[in-house]
This record gives sequence, C-alpha cells and structure tokens, in this order.
Amino acid sequence: MKTYLDCIPCFFRQALQAARIATGDERLIKQILDDVGTLVKDIPLHQTPPETATLIYDTIRRRTGVEDPYAAAKRQDTRRALELYPSARRFVEESDEPLLAAVKIATVANAIDLGALEQVDVDAVLQDARTAEFAVFDFGAFRTCLETADQVLYLGDNAGESVFDRLLIEQLGKPVTFVVRERAVINDVIFDDAVAAGLDRVAEIVSSGCGASGLVPAACTPAFRERLASARMIISKGQGNYETLSSEQLPIFFLLKAKCRVIADDLGVKQGDLILKGSVWNTRLP
Amino acid sequence: MKTYLDCIPCFFRQALQAARIATGDERLIKQILDDVGTLVKDIPLHQTPPETATLIYDTIRRRTGVEDPYAAAKRQDTRRALELYPSARRFVEESDEPLLAAVKIATVANAIDLGALEQVDVDAVLQDARTAEFAVFDFGAFRTCLETADQVLYLGDNAGESVFDRLLIEQLGKPVTFVVRERAVINDVIFDDAVAAGLDRVAEIVSSGCGASGLVPAACTPAFRERLASARMIISKGQGNYETLSSEQLPIFFLLKAKCRVIADDLGVKQGDLILKGSVWNTRLP
Repeated sequence: MKTYLDCIPCFFRQALQAARIATGDERLIKQILDDVGTLVKDIPLHQTPPETATLIYDTIRRRTGVEDPYAAAKRQDTRRALELYPSARRFVEESDEPLLAAVKIATVANAIDLGALEQVDVDAVLQDARTAEFAVFDFGAFRTCLETADQVLYLGDNAGESVFDRLLIEQLGKPVTFVVRERAVINDVIFDDAVAAGLDRVAEIVSSGCGASGLVPAACTPAFRERLASARMIISKGQGNYETLSSEQLPIFFLLKAKCRVIADDLGVKQGDLILKGSVWNTRLP
Repeated sequence: MKTYLDCIPCFFRQALQAARIATGDERLIKQILDDVGTLVKDIPLHQTPPETATLIYDTIRRRTGVEDPYAAAKRQDTRRALELYPSARRFVEESDEPLLAAVKIATVANAIDLGALEQVDVDAVLQDARTAEFAVFDFGAFRTCLETADQVLYLGDNAGESVFDRLLIEQLGKPVTFVVRERAVINDVIFDDAVAAGLDRVAEIVSSGCGASGLVPAACTPAFRERLASARMIISKGQGNYETLSSEQLPIFFLLKAKCRVIADDLGVKQGDLILKGSVWNTRLP
C-alpha cells in the first residue's frame, strides 16, 4: 500500500506518542518533531508507510538513546495475554470449529497495536472474539490452502497479540515459522517478546532481518527473502504487514483489524472492521 | 495559551484538510505538507497555536492561489443558520430567561468550527442548546458585568456560528461591536460573512486587523488595540480566541465548546464541554 497524504499527520502523532514514552524531556521531544518535520519533503508517496515510519523511530532512538521505548508496555501486554491464555485456549478447544475460533481470537487480538492506538485493552480480546464479525472473511480459502500447505510462514505483528497467535498456530497442525522484527519498533514483536509469549514452544522463531513496522521484502536478509518467495502459505498479521505486502504476488492471508481509516479505505471496509483476506494465494496452490 | 506538542500533529491535520479544500492536486498538497514540515523547527512553543496556524494557512494561500478555501462552506453554513434563525429566536424569546437561552445557543453554535472538526452540523445547534450543560458557567458574573457595561466588544469566531451570535447580541441590550478577522482563515468570520449573517443590523462590524484564527493583540491595528484595552466587557467566542487571549489581562468572557483535547486540558474540563468562563473581568468593574 502506498503512503497516503493522511499518513503524514499520523506520522507526527506516532512520533509524539513514541517520543513521550522514550523521554519526559519536552525540549528533546520538540527536537524529534523538528527532525520529523524536515523528513516530510523526503517522503515519497509511492513508498509504504512503515518504510517512512522506520526513519521516524530511528530518529527517536538516536535522539533519546532509548532502543526500545515500548519494552515495558510489551512486557505488560504479554504478561496479561499469558494470564488469559488458558481460558482463550479453552474457548478454542471447546468450540465447534477450533480453527475458526482461533482465527477469530488471533484477528481480534490485532487490536493490541500501540502504533494505531494510544491504549490497548488486552482483556477485551476474549470477549470480542465471541462476537467477532468479519467484513472480509476468506476462511474457506484459508482452510483449503492450509490443508495442502506443508508448512506455514506466520508474520507476527504486536507483542501481546503474539500470545493469541500461538493459539492459532496450535490449531494449524503444520510446522510453522513465526517471523519477528529484526529490532524494536513501536510495540511490534521481536525475538525476545516472542519467546516470552511462548512461541518457541509451537514454532521456529526467525527474524526477517527487517526492522520496519511492516515486513519490507527488500529490507530482509537474502535467506529470509528466499523463504518468503518459496512459501506455500503465509499468514500476515496486522496493518503494518498489510501495508508493505498488499501489492506483493505472494500466497498471503492477511489477518488484521482495520484500525486506521486509510487502511480501511484501501481495503474497502469500515474503520474497526475485522479482515481475513486471501491475496493471490491460489496461484501457488499445487 | 502556549502551543502544546500535541498541536503539531494537529497542524498537519489542519493543513491537509484546508489544502484538500483549496485544491485537488495531490502533488501540490504534498508540497504544502513539505512546507509545513520545514516550518516545525521554527515553531516556538511559547507562541499561541493560532499564530503558528497563520503561517500554515499563508502557505496554502501562496501555493494554491486560493484566498478563501472555506468560502463555499461558510456561505452554506451561514445560509443554513439563517434558515434556523427564526425558530432559534423563538426559542430564546419564549424561554424564561432569554439572555441565558441566547448564551446557550451562541456557545453550542461554536461547534460550527472547521478548524477543529472535519464536518459540522448546523442543524444540531437548536437541539443541543435545549440540553446544554456547561462545565464552567460564570453566568452570574456575566450578567452582572453586562448590567454595568456601557458597551460590549464581541469577538466573532466562525461563519455560520455568527448567526447565533446575532441572537445573543440582540439580548445584550447594549451597543455592540462585532469583531471579525482581517482576512480569510479556516471558516472564521470575515467582514462579508458577518454582513451575510445580518450582524450589521445589530452591531457595528469592525476588523481587528489581525488575520490569525485567534485574535493576537500585537497583530491588531493600533486603533483596535486601543478599543481592546479600554473595553469594559469583551465576549470572546471560540477556541482560537481563547488560545490567543487566555493570558491577557482583559475583562473577557470566553464562550466556547472545548472541541480539542489540548484546550479541554488547559481549561481543566472534558473534551466536548461547553464553557462560559470569566477572565479577570472584575478588575475593570467600576
């Protein structure tokens, strides 16, 4: 997805939020916003929003010296999600269609996104999953693709959310590689967050090599690009990965909550809608 | 009121909104946002937000050549408000306390603000006035001050809203000077808008000489500054005038709807609250 003009005010909102978490020094925060201001003229609209956002989060890191401003928030959300994990797992296992229930929980959990929102409510995930209605729901294709896939590449999004990704991975019944960001960006899941969420018990955890808030293929390691290109089924979580991958010719299923209006418009849905959208996956079916 | 860091993302939101109204050329809009980006480093936080916003609206004017992007919106809101005027007037005149009813209508009408909001609902004014609850309501002081004032300086805010200001002016029972912006900025009321709203029938209309979206005393003509300094009672409408005048030692009553969170925080109220707040007015009472 390209960068829309509406993304530009949002970059400043994100910069301010992240800078405030990294430092309480108002003058330093102002300097960060000054830096972001000078960046605007260099933002090409054909670039995806997470590519630009990377420059912003780099600025915050450089100005404040804080590598991972959201570390505490990520720990807290992961801890709370782990507390909910047993009842969420019961909800999945006791449902008529456990795979479907797990898809719902994993998608609803994409609300744990501190890039799009100022606050998240981990507690709401289970309740929201019970009443979840999707605006796009390619579940049939998802199930069919899964049946024939020998393994699944699962692109993580936010810490905390990953605990609920684990639930879905448990229901896939295939070997799964869980992909994390190379370095901290917003509250996106990095290697240590994934281990804290227990993903190592159900999947191989690998970094894509890319530190943007959406997976940018050109910024990944050659080894990971090879895995991406050869994957038979990719599950992509969240807005950031949708933004960077929606134009790629890959067998992807996008699972996300369309929290931002620009992304909702791009998808042709309403803000807040839940999405399970198959990409050109079928071209890869055997 | 100083510029808060939260105002900076909002400047971009406003710039984008106004630029889109002025032109459909996405490249030109991007250039405007680029210009605003380079401005950020020159924004002093001790300056009031409308002073900075002036630079932004100047940029839009210069880049697009459009002097008054909101002209059509202002005409439409004024026309609609004039259609509601007879029933609003009946509501005031038939109420137990017409001055109070007129204060309510004039304050609720401050929602017709295209700087703070993307869309306004002129039709809602009358309904909202019936149920209006104020978070700050210095009405007793307002009435007392009015009784002793020989005349009133009334600082207008938005076009459309001004029709409802006219209702309040009719209830003041004193000679009133209605103050407009020197030039078009957002949907703020300028001379022609005030005449279209019929303000010339109930007040003398004067320009302050200042073209910012809040009255900046230093940017006014010397003649107007003299009127401001000698006024016994000033009624100030809206957020912009509050932002530029809240620290001034003047006998002001601020009437506004706190649409923006920063202003609500500055006032110690909730976003969306209605305000009738006396300033240090009493120091000037005879």
